[in-house]
Amino acid sequence: MTNHLETLRAPPEPSKIELSHTIEEGAQVLLFQDSRRKWVTRVSRTKFHTHRGFLELSDIIGKRYGESVKTSMGQTLSLFRPRAIDLVDVFDRPTQILYPKDIGYSLYQLGVKAGDRVLEVGTGSGAMTASLAQAVQPDGHIFSYEMRPEFLESARSNIEKAGLSAVVTFHHKDPTEGFDEDEAGAVVVDLGDPWKMVGPAWRALVGGGMLAGFTPTANQLEKLAEALRAGGFLILEAVEVLLRQLKTEAGKVRPESRMVGHTAYVTIARKIL
Amino acid sequence: MTNHLETLRAPPEPSKIELSHTIEEGAQVLLFQDSRRKWVTRVSRTKFHTHRGFLELSDIIGKRYGESVKTSMGQTLSLFRPRAIDLVDVFDRPTQILYPKDIGYSLYQLGVKAGDRVLEVGTGSGAMTASLAQAVQPDGHIFSYEMRPEFLESARSNIEKAGLSAVVTFHHKDPTEGFDEDEAGAVVVDLGDPWKMVGPAWRALVGGGMLAGFTPTANQLEKLAEALRAGGFLILEAVEVLLRQLKTEAGKVRPESRMVGHTAYVTIARKIL
Amino acid sequence: MTNHLETLRAPPEPSKIELSHTIEEGAQVLLFQDSRRKWVTRVSRTKFHTHRGFLELSDIIGKRYGESVKTSMGQTLSLFRPRAIDLVDVFDRPTQILYPKDIGYSLYQLGVKAGDRVLEVGTGSGAMTASLAQAVQPDGHIFSYEMRPEFLESARSNIEKAGLSAVVTFHHKDPTEGFDEDEAGAVVVDLGDPWKMVGPAWRALVGGGMLAGFTPTANQLEKLAEALRAGGFLILEAVEVLLRQLKTEAGKVRPESRMVGHTAYVTIARKIL
Amino acid sequence: MTNHLETLRAPPEPSKIELSHTIEEGAQVLLFQDSRRKWVTRVSRTKFHTHRGFLELSDIIGKRYGESVKTSMGQTLSLFRPRAIDLVDVFDRPTQILYPKDIGYSLYQLGVKAGDRVLEVGTGSGAMTASLAQAVQPDGHIFSYEMRPEFLESARSNIEKAGLSAVVTFHHKDPTEGFDEDEAGAVVVDLGDPWKMVGPAWRALVGGGMLAGFTPTANQLEKLAEALRAGGFLILEAVEVLLRQLKTEAGKVRPESRMVGHTAYVTIARKIL
Repeated sequence: MTNHLETLRAPPEPSKIELSHTIEEGAQVLLFQDSRRKWVTRVSRTKFHTHRGFLELSDIIGKRYGESVKTSMGQTLSLFRPRAIDLVDVFDRPTQILYPKDIGYSLYQLGVKAGDRVLEVGTGSGAMTASLAQAVQPDGHIFSYEMRPEFLESARSNIEKAGLSAVVTFHHKDPTEGFDEDEAGAVVVDLGDPWKMVGPAWRALVGGGMLAGFTPTANQLEKLAEALRAGGFLILEAVEVLLRQLKTEAGKVRPESRMVGHTAYVTIARKIL
Repeated sequence: MTNHLETLRAPPEPSKIELSHTIEEGAQVLLFQDSRRKWVTRVSRTKFHTHRGFLELSDIIGKRYGESVKTSMGQTLSLFRPRAIDLVDVFDRPTQILYPKDIGYSLYQLGVKAGDRVLEVGTGSGAMTASLAQAVQPDGHIFSYEMRPEFLESARSNIEKAGLSAVVTFHHKDPTEGFDEDEAGAVVVDLGDPWKMVGPAWRALVGGGMLAGFTPTANQLEKLAEALRAGGFLILEAVEVLLRQLKTEAGKVRPESRMVGHTAYVTIARKIL
Repeated sequence: MTNHLETLRAPPEPSKIELSHTIEEGAQVLLFQDSRRKWVTRVSRTKFHTHRGFLELSDIIGKRYGESVKTSMGQTLSLFRPRAIDLVDVFDRPTQILYPKDIGYSLYQLGVKAGDRVLEVGTGSGAMTASLAQAVQPDGHIFSYEMRPEFLESARSNIEKAGLSAVVTFHHKDPTEGFDEDEAGAVVVDLGDPWKMVGPAWRALVGGGMLAGFTPTANQLEKLAEALRAGGFLILEAVEVLLRQLKTEAGKVRPESRMVGHTAYVTIARKIL
Repeated sequence: MTNHLETLRAPPEPSKIELSHTIEEGAQVLLFQDSRRKWVTRVSRTKFHTHRGFLELSDIIGKRYGESVKTSMGQTLSLFRPRAIDLVDVFDRPTQILYPKDIGYSLYQLGVKAGDRVLEVGTGSGAMTASLAQAVQPDGHIFSYEMRPEFLESARSNIEKAGLSAVVTFHHKDPTEGFDEDEAGAVVVDLGDPWKMVGPAWRALVGGGMLAGFTPTANQLEKLAEALRAGGFLILEAVEVLLRQLKTEAGKVRPESRMVGHTAYVTIARKIL
């Protein structure tokens, strides 16, 4: 991974930040109704249809991010710059995807940052791929492996729509025999038999490089942990992340009635020499 | 925030990644015994003392990251490049700090990335500051406000040791009347009375900019949520993140007996115009 | 509450336990397909209809508990003696009912046992009523207050079908001004404004008597706790009980994907003089 | 298990409830300072010593339950009738004991009630034994098996002090080859290798009888579940119960910082013929 910044620099002036306040043609925009109903699109001279009426996309050119518009049926939509999490929320999903609670925690544990070089297997729908891509851009790169052609196709399309293709390379390939790349700072493994990837991951990582593995069952966790310990890794931790949403209406603060009970155990390990 | 990458580029060659494999004099290194006993230092011509003997730091010059060494008393220490989470773990802590489970989730929800400009109040020991700094470097910047001089001093020292001073500007100042900066992509609020910061945060943020607030009690959560709704924000969610560690010894897989029951509710909101 | 047993007695012979092994006409029986599809009925000379065919109830007379039968469409149903939890699961529910996780924990905390005299407000669908009734039978008694006639009617019918009418007395009455009974060992409060019941509960309880209150929101919890502290109670604890189901298929052990995120905070308090 | 009450009876008059309001010599009393400092003793003509001064027990004769007294050093102690949970809290504990969250849930799931006949293996310190005893008294009985003599001795002493000896029979014996009793309504298994008890439990239970098993690891849970399915049981559920304490101080409502992360998975099964 790249070195930490250690030379002193003057903090950048606001004016130096390239940040358009107004929405331009061709820009990526999040149309936000609520957490469950939101869409990401590019601004063009076409109509955008929702279940609550349509929108002339050209009407939002020149509006500022943070403003809102109304559809033909009067539904208010806020106009936002999409975060990685918004991009992922609107992905096509031929397969189960990782949850934000697991992605966010893993990115932080992996320490993935701008300029990093990361390997991923399997791609799935590309949720983790997009999140990794945003974390390493503009100079880092993600190399993502997927064996099932329909998933790969969907992920490629998702990543392209997300505008992150420049930092992602896809491989339609089984990396059990070895990744095509080496010198990776981190490897992310999201497969049914992740223990098979321990050897290839070790060989592809730099010394001290990080690994994150996702396993839904306790049995998979056990096998992955055994393989890591036997395969030249130090397990930093195995955890499960639980997330509870809260209602915050005044006078009625309480957790939501329903929550996700389980997604996957997350194992974080580090290559030792 | 900066635009997503949309132009196509060839993936970088491994050789182009500036990544020293060997530990050089002056480099920052993590000496890792286990999750509870680890130290970050710079490699110099001095002795480093642990409770299990000392180490001649000069002996590790030329070693590769991922290798290990032994102290004078035979304790094995792995040599790693520190992640933000390692840097934070070794911080001086005159005050309670945010937990990785909350930092990781918030960074992902905020969508903070390379090049972003972020405001923070209050700094505390600098755990969130360092994590934000690593996420926005090398071209972004963190402006962090803290009113208690002893915390500010400690945070400044922590950030300097972490090698992140170039991307952080500290203010010894109460921003209730307004931040010195504007055009921020995100504001992070970790104070006892976060509702007071809603107005200043709104004015300092770009349209659609993000806010994360941390509140230990349900009463604070309620007041913050009310202030956000009244103050031009859309609450995306209020959550609590729970983390359970697992033991992964073969044949004895089980959650740990003890866990952290509560730290803070995390509120994620977005500025609307 | 009654005294603990302290005189020595010979353990009862199995033969002295009145326990019919065979299902008799008029007996209460649980027809069990799976956790979600189960029915409680009395054995009579009629047909019992399920969505998977019917059953001649007379055919199960003489069968043993634990055996199974097949419906006209070939669905296997196990024949069990219903527990309180089974009775409650099949209740008509005009209103939200308490969950087993909360009932079980509260019964244990309250220390309710055979011979106890317990007050309840409000009855709701009678889930807690039935559970209390089973705990105090045969010599104890439950006095349950409900102001909404449709709930009372439903609860009365549920308790009667459960065969627990002999130990339950219903009141269609607001006990804010005072319960009709006193000398109670425990009071259970499941209302939107439970703090109103603190005074009446105190007056109706014996010295050292127990109170359990259920409150969905943090705001209600706060108000109830304040009223209890001001009203002559010692709060033993306020908790939330979370339950995770696990899948136990060999090689695929894991928590279920979905769980209940929140029902109510449970407050346990004790009357002091 | 005994039949449900189905004959109608007039609710008992308060006067008929045998309930002494005043503390008599020889009575069992809970001296309560707070949740962590409480003691159960019998009222006699002796001194009772706490770390905050002593108490002349004779002084509390004639006081009412719910009143409080002061020690020689001025510490206030409330005088309560002990619940099962209080008795268990003051047990000698040569071994890890089950937690109230697990005991309370299991008792409710097992449907154990007055008059029931229950088998237990292993006794441990007797926490579950005492709780079962209180649930089945006065006419039911617990038969508890323990192979380690020091635990058995401790449990026997605990149960005697708790005043529950009349409803408990201990066996210093390995029941792997079979329990001495049969016709049991429920069997509780708390052993390292609970799968060995599936056969004996099946033979000792009445048709439709209940089993509860406690297993700390996922591997034990898996093996127990397999044995139950193969051994004539229907698994009703396997769960883990999590309990969070809340602080209820006005204006500062929040979960406690620390919680128990794991004790044991609880498996509830029913014998089928």
